[in-house]
Amino acid sequence: MTLKVYADRMSQPSRAIIIFCKVNGIDFEEVRIDLVKRQHRSPEFKEINPMGQVPAVVDGRYKLFESHAILSYLSCAFPGIPDHWYPADLFTRAKIQSILDWHHTNLRRGAATFVLNRALGPALGLPLNPQAANEAEIILRASLSKIESLWLKGNAKFLLGNFQPSIADLSLVCEIMQLEVVDEKDRDRILGPHPMILQWIENVKSATSPHFEEVHGILYKVKARLHSRLANAKPNDTHLSMKPNPKL
Amino acid sequence: MTLKVYADRMSQPSRAIIIFCKVNGIDFEEVRIDLVKRQHRSPEFKEINPMGQVPAVVDGRYKLFESHAILSYLSCAFPGIPDHWYPADLFTRAKIQSILDWHHTNLRRGAATFVLNRALGPALGLPLNPQAANEAEIILRASLSKIESLWLKGNAKFLLGNFQPSIADLSLVCEIMQLEVVDEKDRDRILGPHPMILQWIENVKSATSPHFEEVHGILYKVKARLHSRLANAKPNDTHLSMKPNPKL
Repeated sequence: MTLKVYADRMSQPSRAIIIFCKVNGIDFEEVRIDLVKRQHRSPEFKEINPMGQVPAVVDGRYKLFESHAILSYLSCAFPGIPDHWYPADLFTRAKIQSILDWHHTNLRRGAATFVLNRALGPALGLPLNPQAANEAEIILRASLSKIESLWLKGNAKFLLGNFQPSIADLSLVCEIMQLEVVDEKDRDRILGPHPMILQWIENVKSATSPHFEEVHGILYKVKARLHSRLANAKPNDTHLSMKPNPKL
Repeated sequence: MTLKVYADRMSQPSRAIIIFCKVNGIDFEEVRIDLVKRQHRSPEFKEINPMGQVPAVVDGRYKLFESHAILSYLSCAFPGIPDHWYPADLFTRAKIQSILDWHHTNLRRGAATFVLNRALGPALGLPLNPQAANEAEIILRASLSKIESLWLKGNAKFLLGNFQPSIADLSLVCEIMQLEVVDEKDRDRILGPHPMILQWIENVKSATSPHFEEVHGILYKVKARLHSRLANAKPNDTHLSMKPNPKL
């Protein structure tokens, strides 16, 4: 039975799962759960994931949510997945788990909160909150510095000095890619001081080509749409009520 | 070489690691990192964990931080740890990882933020913030409801209907135990509606006795001290500047 991946490509952990499946030749069906249409809150989807969040997978009778758990599950459940994604070596695997745990309360907290309050909120029916965006930017900047100084030191190609990417590389880079939807000045201000992060993103893109760019294509479309709407909004209108757009 | 566990028993993930080691007979040295004295920010400790947080472990030449990663590492690295803590079965293990991932941004976010802003902040040089406490209580209540309805349904003894505890039971129950330091009225209001949660806490206590109660002993002492100071404070003084207390 084909693996089902319930996802919205606007969600960064959804993209990580889809890219992982495509790169590793996993036979899967992508089931679109439209966040703007609030399909993740529907009773039908809550039968799949009672937490009402994407991504989630169904593998035969087995259901699983939380993207990090899904990535490690897929790494072990499907034959032929190269070891570098989730190394069997106890010590390396625990270091990867440590990065993934850290991600939840640092990089993800900073990046997701920043993007939501700087650009994406209105598409989800939430107001933009400049103060929350500023606070999140501090966490985001500190997180990027930590990644660079601890896990990419010595111009490592991938996290922990590995020569090939792990599920942590994929998860964290998909998170940072969410910054594509904010204004370029904001993105440059935040990522510009981190050349090793920028090189690392390129390394992950390259290692997962052409799937990485294909799956991220939606971000560029949404960015163009958001910016044209913001440009047409009144100067102080931080609550853009955007109608759900089936193309978003 | 003996495992070193860098911890402050006031930190809920620190307690989970210490209890795990004691219950499983792991030979370890507990190295106290006093959060009130800000020892976690010292250059010496940052050599152990550059993130400046407890817990962290050093196992020979190997260093690791993030409590969930540590618990899964210890489960695999030491001989004779019973399988139920971190089952080798792929499907059960992935479900446990899913709960641990969920914990970061739900139960932990709610409980830790609530306790910090309702009681513990001043001991760490932070003001009490009633609005932040109220917002966190909403997340905490929702998290408790989810645990009860999804993972403890059918009066399960432990999460996922297991008959023995996993590292997820230990981690989540240590989190909820942090509520011991808030006012009993607050604790009763939050936990009272969840008899299955209360029973589950008792089950984890019982399965890890006498270590669970011994390691949690500090909470009751701190609770008494905080409440006596709060009772002596002016009615609107939400920023109690408590001097670091070596006994805290």
